[in-house]
Parts: sequence; structure tokens; C-alpha cells
Amino acid sequence: MSRKPLRVLAIGAHPDDLEFQVAGTLAKYAARGDTVIMAVATNGDIGSATHTMEEIGAIRKQEALDSAALIGAELIWMDYHDEFFFYNEESRRHMIEVMRHAAPDVVLGHWTNDYHPDHSLSGMAARDARIMTAVPLIITASAHLQKIPVHFFYDTLAGIDFTPEVYVDVSDTFETKRQMLACHKSQNAWISDIFEGRSIAQMMEVQSAFRGLQAGVRYAEGFRALPTFPRARDYSLLPLE
Amino acid sequence: MSRKPLRVLAIGAHPDDLEFQVAGTLAKYAARGDTVIMAVATNGDIGSATHTMEEIGAIRKQEALDSAALIGAELIWMDYHDEFFFYNEESRRHMIEVMRHAAPDVVLGHWTNDYHPDHSLSGMAARDARIMTAVPLIITASAHLQKIPVHFFYDTLAGIDFTPEVYVDVSDTFETKRQMLACHKSQNAWISDIFEGRSIAQMMEVQSAFRGLQAGVRYAEGFRALPTFPRARDYSLLPLE
Amino acid sequence: MSRKPLRVLAIGAHPDDLEFQVAGTLAKYAARGDTVIMAVATNGDIGSATHTMEEIGAIRKQEALDSAALIGAELIWMDYHDEFFFYNEESRRHMIEVMRHAAPDVVLGHWTNDYHPDHSLSGMAARDARIMTAVPLIITASAHLQKIPVHFFYDTLAGIDFTPEVYVDVSDTFETKRQMLACHKSQNAWISDIFEGRSIAQMMEVQSAFRGLQAGVRYAEGFRALPTFPRARDYSLLPLE
Amino acid sequence: MSRKPLRVLAIGAHPDDLEFQVAGTLAKYAARGDTVIMAVATNGDIGSATHTMEEIGAIRKQEALDSAALIGAELIWMDYHDEFFFYNEESRRHMIEVMRHAAPDVVLGHWTNDYHPDHSLSGMAARDARIMTAVPLIITASAHLQKIPVHFFYDTLAGIDFTPEVYVDVSDTFETKRQMLACHKSQNAWISDIFEGRSIAQMMEVQSAFRGLQAGVRYAEGFRALPTFPRARDYSLLPLE
Amino acid sequence: MSRKPLRVLAIGAHPDDLEFQVAGTLAKYAARGDTVIMAVATNGDIGSATHTMEEIGAIRKQEALDSAALIGAELIWMDYHDEFFFYNEESRRHMIEVMRHAAPDVVLGHWTNDYHPDHSLSGMAARDARIMTAVPLIITASAHLQKIPVHFFYDTLAGIDFTPEVYVDVSDTFETKRQMLACHKSQNAWISDIFEGRSIAQMMEVQSAFRGLQAGVRYAEGFRALPTFPRARDYSLLPLE
Amino acid sequence: MSRKPLRVLAIGAHPDDLEFQVAGTLAKYAARGDTVIMAVATNGDIGSATHTMEEIGAIRKQEALDSAALIGAELIWMDYHDEFFFYNEESRRHMIEVMRHAAPDVVLGHWTNDYHPDHSLSGMAARDARIMTAVPLIITASAHLQKIPVHFFYDTLAGIDFTPEVYVDVSDTFETKRQMLACHKSQNAWISDIFEGRSIAQMMEVQSAFRGLQAGVRYAEGFRALPTFPRARDYSLLPLE
Repeated sequence: MSRKPLRVLAIGAHPDDLEFQVAGTLAKYAARGDTVIMAVATNGDIGSATHTMEEIGAIRKQEALDSAALIGAELIWMDYHDEFFFYNEESRRHMIEVMRHAAPDVVLGHWTNDYHPDHSLSGMAARDARIMTAVPLIITASAHLQKIPVHFFYDTLAGIDFTPEVYVDVSDTFETKRQMLACHKSQNAWISDIFEGRSIAQMMEVQSAFRGLQAGVRYAEGFRALPTFPRARDYSLLPLE
Repeated sequence: MSRKPLRVLAIGAHPDDLEFQVAGTLAKYAARGDTVIMAVATNGDIGSATHTMEEIGAIRKQEALDSAALIGAELIWMDYHDEFFFYNEESRRHMIEVMRHAAPDVVLGHWTNDYHPDHSLSGMAARDARIMTAVPLIITASAHLQKIPVHFFYDTLAGIDFTPEVYVDVSDTFETKRQMLACHKSQNAWISDIFEGRSIAQMMEVQSAFRGLQAGVRYAEGFRALPTFPRARDYSLLPLE
Repeated sequence: MSRKPLRVLAIGAHPDDLEFQVAGTLAKYAARGDTVIMAVATNGDIGSATHTMEEIGAIRKQEALDSAALIGAELIWMDYHDEFFFYNEESRRHMIEVMRHAAPDVVLGHWTNDYHPDHSLSGMAARDARIMTAVPLIITASAHLQKIPVHFFYDTLAGIDFTPEVYVDVSDTFETKRQMLACHKSQNAWISDIFEGRSIAQMMEVQSAFRGLQAGVRYAEGFRALPTFPRARDYSLLPLE
Repeated sequence: MSRKPLRVLAIGAHPDDLEFQVAGTLAKYAARGDTVIMAVATNGDIGSATHTMEEIGAIRKQEALDSAALIGAELIWMDYHDEFFFYNEESRRHMIEVMRHAAPDVVLGHWTNDYHPDHSLSGMAARDARIMTAVPLIITASAHLQKIPVHFFYDTLAGIDFTPEVYVDVSDTFETKRQMLACHKSQNAWISDIFEGRSIAQMMEVQSAFRGLQAGVRYAEGFRALPTFPRARDYSLLPLE
Repeated sequence: MSRKPLRVLAIGAHPDDLEFQVAGTLAKYAARGDTVIMAVATNGDIGSATHTMEEIGAIRKQEALDSAALIGAELIWMDYHDEFFFYNEESRRHMIEVMRHAAPDVVLGHWTNDYHPDHSLSGMAARDARIMTAVPLIITASAHLQKIPVHFFYDTLAGIDFTPEVYVDVSDTFETKRQMLACHKSQNAWISDIFEGRSIAQMMEVQSAFRGLQAGVRYAEGFRALPTFPRARDYSLLPLE
Repeated sequence: MSRKPLRVLAIGAHPDDLEFQVAGTLAKYAARGDTVIMAVATNGDIGSATHTMEEIGAIRKQEALDSAALIGAELIWMDYHDEFFFYNEESRRHMIEVMRHAAPDVVLGHWTNDYHPDHSLSGMAARDARIMTAVPLIITASAHLQKIPVHFFYDTLAGIDFTPEVYVDVSDTFETKRQMLACHKSQNAWISDIFEGRSIAQMMEVQSAFRGLQAGVRYAEGFRALPTFPRARDYSLLPLE
């Protein structure tokens, strides 16, 4: 009768990346009863012009927890230093363990050519870890998965070098998305200072509205299927309806 | 409770093109109760090494009717001369009328860079006619549509220059697809003669199995959404179950 | 001391296309003293759900004149039937004559793969006419040009299949752009009816803001140089400063 | 023991296009005993700033004959008006007949996105005619072919939008290429006048040397296989050794 | 009179990758008297759901030796841990030494964007090592080469993200290819378990038949030339005849 | 009245890479009063068939100093071993420091898919370091920048896989470019030995002339803007006039 709830793992490089790009989709999953896990690769410990690394790291973790709480999501804090996530054996194994812990049906990861290397490199690590989650002889803290999860890439900052194949209509959950992003209070002044005056909230709204324009709805988020074998047959694990 | 049945229009350049590329998907639509209309742009009147144009044209129309009958589909015979379908005002208006007559929710058309110009040019005509079906001041025999249909491209011969975004699993309807293609008896000797010895049936099976390999199923057919505005938000009008 | 004023020719398929995509740039040219000519390929005579073709054609021409008047631009009315601009010898020769009449330093034309065939086909005709404007033995009403103009493509509807190479900051002229688009009163209800509820003005603002986001300014318009020989060496004929 | 001589058909839009892009390869074919046929789509009747159309057309035909004579090639003069080659049923049928007359093993045609529409459109017509040459029910003056010829695209002006897959080393025949191009005396002043001062001979030498640089030889010409079905399995019909 | 035999080095990530993608070509080289060397980057020590790493590693090495023996090829066992081949200074130097030891005329390596990171990363290491093989001041066990070998990429799993430029007809050696793959007995149950039920042998046959369909033969393998300087001028080092 | 002088940082992998690809542009910057800094990632210590690593490294540094002196540029010698530049945390931090020391308005870096891994990997390191130069909590010897510099990619060897978006006319500074390259005396015999007989000077002239052909001038250098956020709005920081 009823649909079996999904387990959804979204992986972002910095605290607030998931809020910017996929929070509308995550809220939609949560609203229909799926389990959402948000993993953050770095601890955001350089994201400030005024705090020490320890201070800003602690602040940002709390902001991430506040945001995840709004949709009842679990937060996984991978705790790499901000700006210096590299893709190597250690981080690949870490990604495998994160995926096994989350045991997801579907993974949402960064595109591998985004503006920031933490995005691109964590996107590569997630992409490549996926196929190894089901291999028994790779030992990590959690047991190996019975089934390789389906992997989708989400949008880049300002949509550059990213052509969505499919759009999730997030008009209904856009207000939640806005609130989740607003939890990241520490980033507002800092970012608009670097990026010529638009706040993060404004940047996110422009991009969500543009993806909505392309998709024929008010607000949308765009995705692409991982194109390598075994690739997603379709997009039915996204909350499209 | 129950899904509203769809109206599906598939447009092929020659009799047997739809059978080769989308018959598995069409059979799936039909099997679940959707209405299927098969339009054929040319009358196949050169498809023979032995018959006259009139003879072979008549033979091929009957073959197309036999094939459509297997899934209870309506056949629209556009009757352009084989090899000489050109994209101009006349053929565009004809395509508009075909679409209005069929009143489809979804259109399946040729990729616009396939190996044969009849494929590519009828693919362009279908693609461009779509947006005009809803314009009241363009007058054709049938009334204008209330809603622009969603358009998908299907695969090319041997899959060249075509990267599917989404795959329809046709393992269950593959036997029907084979039978539909087999209705086109006149093409078997002729084609294997030109194309170095593989029969059409064998070519079709190889391609369907390859798309299945990519999609993780036994047999599949690949599709892409028309990438122009207003683009398909998702693929839910395909029979993805 | 002072810059020699440029002559700028922008060519759109329908009345309001130029307003949607390049009016901010045109206003910037005009504001600094360059001469702007706006050519419209079709007469917009199907752009209505209520008027006859003659009525709506007349209305739309006046709207186009009103819009051009806001920046002191000349309007060239090519008067092809809306929805049925085809690229053939007649329309190519017509484009050559339009360019010779305008005698531009720079031409702004549609991308050749936009959502509407009138856009794509008039974009092709403009692109190809350009190189012939300087050929003496091609005789049209106006004299041949001494110099082949530089050609740029402007953005597509919803930015689909278009990656800008360069952005013109139109923050300062955005209000003029809005007013120019608003002159096309007849299109508002009609379009939002077809395209799921956003008005043309809203669609335009979303897209201009998104291009601005990519370019680091409030509002921007994106362009690409014609990539064929002799190609633009740089973008200095655009109003970039 | 000995290789069977090939029949090679090269098709250019204007007198001197073949000389600029493939004369080194044609000379190589000729030198080893293959039969070379050069077809020219337009009669070059606008290629002058001083002559009438009739005068310059006659001059250019003689120049083309002089050039072909240097390698003992047959010249086919298709005689369309320069600048106005369009791709339609008439020109497609004409191309079919040219190919049947030449009965080639291999066809060399323009890339379909070159700087001049005569290039692109004759390139499309040649590409599409190829598959129809073997169809008995398409009647032209010459008999249908027994085998579809293999089709390669040659380089564009200034190499824009063209990435060679394979290179023919023309160092040994470069002097012949230079002489063939030099037969087109009428074009020298005229072209350097339009294209900012480099003579055609200099343009050709720069491009041939650049393709040679890419290929590790002194002078080369680049090619791509037609990517559609049935595609060239390899490049063995090019004079690679 | 006679052709000088070539030295051919094929590099695969795991035992059985070369058998899946290039064994038909390798068998063809061997059959005409060329020397074939097969290098395997990882030891396959995770390729089992039942054995320990040591056990399965030993089993797979023997399977690789059995396969190589069928065409008289030398096997180079690079012995990296399966799933954890990374591209760094150590593995690059290792690849340089492997190439110097093999002293090949031609190298066949993985595409750098295949489904498994061991494929992509060993493909990058091989691609980049190539140019350094001829540098005297890079010291490895074997002497530097006198000539940089020509590099080709072979196909990906399920052909995703790989468009062949050239095809080798392997119809005649397909039975040998099948036998070589069959030597990898340990992989059959294991893989079909993970990849939804098709055996490796079936997957390989589908892909070889599809590449054959594209190339107009029964079975084929597809290749691309490394596109960077100094690039292959042509494909004459592949066994095309 | 007068333009504020720019600070320009060009980063090359080996001594002589900047001379080959961007020296004409650098000379143009210098000639108009901008400050030019040339950074070289590796010390060139394998670039010889006869010297020891120490000897050739010392020779090449002096050659680089001689070249930089011709346009009054500062030289930054990063001193990584030739052939073994890897992109990791150390080299990224080094690039950040180089950029902070240079404090540039504009950075010119290698394309990330050039023929040599030192090119591609130093290109990636430069590309990614850029955005971090303005982050206060990343501590290096020099202070963080107030503004993220604009980043352009320059051409690849033989122009393979590189399509310029914009061209700098270097006809006037070409003689200086030739002299700068000629300072690298140690490379002439060595390179032509490996790359089949053309000297570096000849290779450079062919490529500069080809880019000039594309741009309609005698000699040119081609560039592309870094396409990721925040991307260059235009090309006005290049010396285009």
C-alpha cells in the first residue's frame, strides 16, 4: 500500500553548502517521511574574518546542528580543516564509512567541477567511495552495504558548468530552505564582503528562482545522475511528485 | 485512486523506425492502459531493391498497420516520399496537425542528428511543431491544444551521438518489440544487404541489450528530454514504474 | 580624445525578444551616445488568444515602436509571419539588406539553438548574412559595407543551452529595460497563461539577476562571440565599462 | 601483391576551397595512382570586386581546371551561384548524382559548421547524399552505387570548431598544394582585402604548419570521420603511410 | 618485405579488465607476431565475498597468468592493493619503469573517466608516465626509451562516457577473448551478484557486439588517441587490417 | 586621467613555458607600465640529455632570469623538481603564498589539461589557490589579499584541447617574445631531438601565427576565463587595445 521510506544521504563540503543547494529537496524528503542524513566534510574553521579557527569551527557546527534540526535530519561532522579537504586514501575510506553508517538508498554529492576545491574534491571522494561501500573486504567501522546506493550530483555555485538533467520542484519547501540557510548566521557578513555585496540568502534565492524558471515552477533545484556504471536507470529516487 | 491514462504520440521517419527504437516503451504504455499513436513521416516507398515505389509503399503501410495492431495503437501515415522528407513550412504545419489530432501528453521523436536525414529532419520538425500546437491563431484541421506536450528524444541507429539521460526497462515487453519489428518483413533482406550482414532484428537486439547493460537490466531503451524551454521538469511521463 | 560612436544592430525574432534579452545592453549603448537599431524579424501576428492576426500585428508593432522610443532607437520591421520565419534565400537576402541599411559595427543576434524556431532560424540567417554584407556583387537596396561587422550571440530563454563568455553589467539600465519590456502590454496575460504563471517581467528579472549572480553584479546580460572566421578578437565593442 | 587504386571524391563549396584544405592529401592520392575527382559546388561568380558575375565565374572555372590539371584530377562543376548554395531536394539530388558519377571509395566534404554557409550547407548535402547513393529507387542520370562510400570531413577556415581525429602528412606534396592554390590568381588581392592583409597563400601555409605541429610533421591536413551509422571503422582509406 | 613486429603494452587496473576490453585486439597483435605485454596495476585482493585478501590475491594472479598464456603474453604484476590505487609520485615512477621495461611502440590504457577510480587513476598515471619514459635524468631500473610510445585509450565499462574514434574488428579473435576472460573464474559469481545478474562474460559479449554494430562488423573494440602533444598522427599502430 | 597600473602574475610549470605561451602578452603589459611577475613552478632540473640535475637546474634559472630581465619582470622560482610537480596541500599553500607575494590584479595560469602533468597540475594548483588568497585564517608568509584576483588560462602546447575565448594581438611585441624564448638556449637541441625536429622557436612561431590567423592579426595569444564563481565578468584586465 504505502511507499517504503527512503534513506537519503547528502554530503556537502562546508556547513551551509547543503542548505544553499539541496535543502529544498531534503525538506521534501523529510516531509514525506524519508530519513535524511546531512554530512559535512569540513568544519568550516576558516569561515570568518574575526574569530579564531577554534571559535568559528564551534560556531559553525552549532549552526549546522540547528539547521539539520529543522527537518529532523542527522548531522555527520567529518571535521576536515576548511579549505584543505584533499582526496586521498584516508578521505576515501572516511567517505566509505560515512556511507555505510548512513546506509542510504540515494546519495546527493557535489559536482566535481565546482568553484571551490573542497566542493570538487569531496564530490570526487563521494562519487568514488560509493561503489566500494558494498565490498566486504574493505573494512571500516560499519558493515558493508548490501546494495550500491544511487548517486546524484547537485548544482554548483551560480550554476556555472552545471546543466541539470532533472529538477525537483521546491516551491512548497522553499521557506524551510530559507530558514535552514538562515541558521548559518556567521556567514552572512563574511561572504557578502568577499563576493561583492549580495547576501548568501539573496544568492540562493536568485539561483533557486532561475532553476524554477527553467523547470516551469517557482523554485527548483537541479540534479544530474552520476554517469558511470552502474548508472541510475531513472530519477525515481528523487522526490519528484 | 487510479492514474489517468496518458496519450502518447511517437513519430518515426520510416516504417520500422519506431519498432527499432521505442516499441518496448510503447508496448509498456499500452499494457498499462495508455493510448498510443504511432505516426510515420514517410511512406517507405524506396525501401526495396526489387519492387516499384508504389508496390513497396503499399506493402510497408500494411506492415506498419500490422505492427501497430499488436499493441492496439493508432497509425498516422504522413505519406512523404521516403528519403526526401524536408523540414519546411508545409511539413511543420503537418506536424502541428498530427500533434493536435493526437492531443498527446507526451511526444517521442527522433534525435536531430541521426544517421539518416529523414530521421534528423523529421526530428527537427516534431521538436519545433510542439510549441506551436497551443497557439490558437495557427489554424489547422484540428483544434489547438490546451497544453504544450512534453517532448523526449529517442535513441539513434547504433546509439551514435546519443547519450541517454534516462532508460526505460523493456525486458518485459521485449518479445512484443521483436514481434512488432518482425512485421516489417520487406526490410530484412534489403537492409542486411546494405549494412554488411546483420539482420534488423539482430541489430535491434544488440542495441537494446547494450542500453540494458548501461541501465542494469536485460533490455532497455534510452531517452533524453528536449533541453529547450519549457523543458520537462522530470521524466514522470515515461513508463518508468 | 573622445570615442567614435558605434552603430549597433540588434535583431530579435518577435516584438519583445530584444527587450527580454538585450535591452539593458542597448540602453547602455544609447546612454553613452551610440546609435542603436532594433530589427524585429516577425510581426508578432499570432501573439494573442483573442485578437485577429491583423489586429494583434498592428498592436505589437506599436508596442515595439514605443519601446524603441525609450532609448531613441530606430525600429526595422521585417514583417515575416510570426511562427513561420524560415531561413532561405529570401530571408538571407533580407537580412543582408537590413545589415547594410543599419551599417553596424556590431550585431547582436539570437543563439541558433533557442527554444523557438523563429529565434534559432533568424539567428542562423543573421549569422550567415553578416559575411555577405561586404560582397559588392550581392546587390540589395543599400550599398555593400566596407567592413564585416562583429557578431555576438545573446542569451536564450531561461538560459538553456547558453554559456556566456562575457557579461554586460546592466544594473544601471535595468529600470529602462523593465520599462521597455513593459511596453509590450499585449503579451503579459497571454504568456503567463502558456508558461505556467510567471509574467514575462518576472521571468526577465529572474534571468537578469541570475546572470548578474554569475558575473558578480546585480543584473547582467550574457553574450558569446560568433566562433567562426573571422571571429571577434575580443569583446571591446560591447559596452563593458 | 599491389593495392587496388582508390577513387576519391573531394567536394568544395568554392573554387579554391579544396586547394586550401585538402590539396596536399589529394596530391598524395594522385601520386600513388589513385583517381581524384574534384567537385566544386558554386561557380564563384561573386568572388570579385571588379568583374561582372559572368566574367569572374568564367575566370574561376578556368583557374579550377588549371589547378585540377596539376594532379590529373577530373573537375565537376556544379555551378550553383556563389553565396547562395542552399540545401534542398534539388541540391541533395545533385549531390547524389555527383557521387554516383564519381563512384568513389571515399568522399572528403566540408565540415557542417564552417565560417561560410556555402561550406556548411554543401557539407550537409554531401553528408546526407552519401547514404542514398546506394538506393536503387532513387533515380538519377548515373546508376546507383553498390557500396556506400566512406565519408571524411576536412578542416575549417582557421581551424575554428574543428578538432582533427587523424592527420595526413602532406610535407612531401606541400609544394604541389601551394601551386594548386596559386592557380586561383583572381582571389589573392580580393581576399587579403577583406580579411585584413594576409594573402590566401600565407593563410594556408600557417594552417598547414599548425596542423603539422600538432601531428609532429612539417605540414599536415586534419580530418574527422563522419560519426553516423554506418561509420568508418578506421582511417585506412586516407593516404596515411 | 615484412613488417617489423611491434611491442605492445596494455595496462589494466584489475585482473580481467584487459580481458574485458582489449583482449580481442591483443590476440590480433599476437596472432600476427607482435609482442604483447599485459600489466595489471592492482592485485585484485578484494575481489571476493568469501576468500581472505591473501587468498583471493593469489588466485587472481594465477588466473591472470593463465589468460596471458593463451596469447603468449608477458604479465607484469604491479601489485597495488585493489580499490586503492592512487596516482602519486610513487605510482607514476612505477608506471615509467613498467613502460621502460616493456619498451613498447604502443600503449593501451584506461580512459581517465571510467566507473571505477582504480581505472581512472591508473589511466591518468599511464597517460602521464608516457612522456617521461624518454627523459634520461629520470632514473628507474630500466634504461630510458629512445622514443615516446604512442598512447591509445580503450573503452569503459558499458561504454559510458566513451566515444570511440576508431574500431578494431575482433570477430576473428573473439573466441580467444572469451577464453581469456573465462580464465578469471573467481569473478563470475561475485560480479553478477553485485551488478544485477548478468555474468561478466555476457556483459563483455553485449559490449563487443554493440561496438561491432557501430563499426559494421560482428565484434569490435573501440579506441581513442591520447589527444595531447605529441599526439598520434594516425591509428596505424593498431591492428586494423 | 591615466590608467592605474596593473599587477600581473604569470605562472608556468617549467622555465620557458611562459615564454612560449604568454611572453607577447607580458611584454605588452610591461610596455604600458604594468608590473609583471613571472613564477616558475619547477626548476627544470631534468631538462638535459648531457648535464647533471644540479648543473641544468642552475643553467635554466639563469636563462629564466635573463628572459625576465628583458621586460623588467620579477622572477619567482618555486623550485619543485621538474617532472614531479604534484598538487597537494604543500604546493597549494605555496601557490597561495606566491599569489599573496605578487598581489596581482590578474593571474595567467596553465590550462588544466595540457600535454605535460607539470602543466596541468600546476594549473590546477594555481586555479584553486586563487580563491584562498583572500582568506585571513589561512596563514602564509605574506598577508592575505583584499581582493580575489581574476584568473585566465593560457594556451596549451600545439593548441590541443584549448579553444580561446579571447585573443591578445602580440604582433608588436613578437620580437621581444622571440628574444625571451631565445634566452632558454639549453632547450633547443634537447627539445627538437625529442619532438621530431622543429626547434622550440619554430614551434612557437607556428602557434602564434595560427592564433593570429584566427584573430585576424599577424601574431596572437589565446586565453580563456576561469569559468567558476566568481568568474571574470569580461576580459578588460587583458591588454587588448
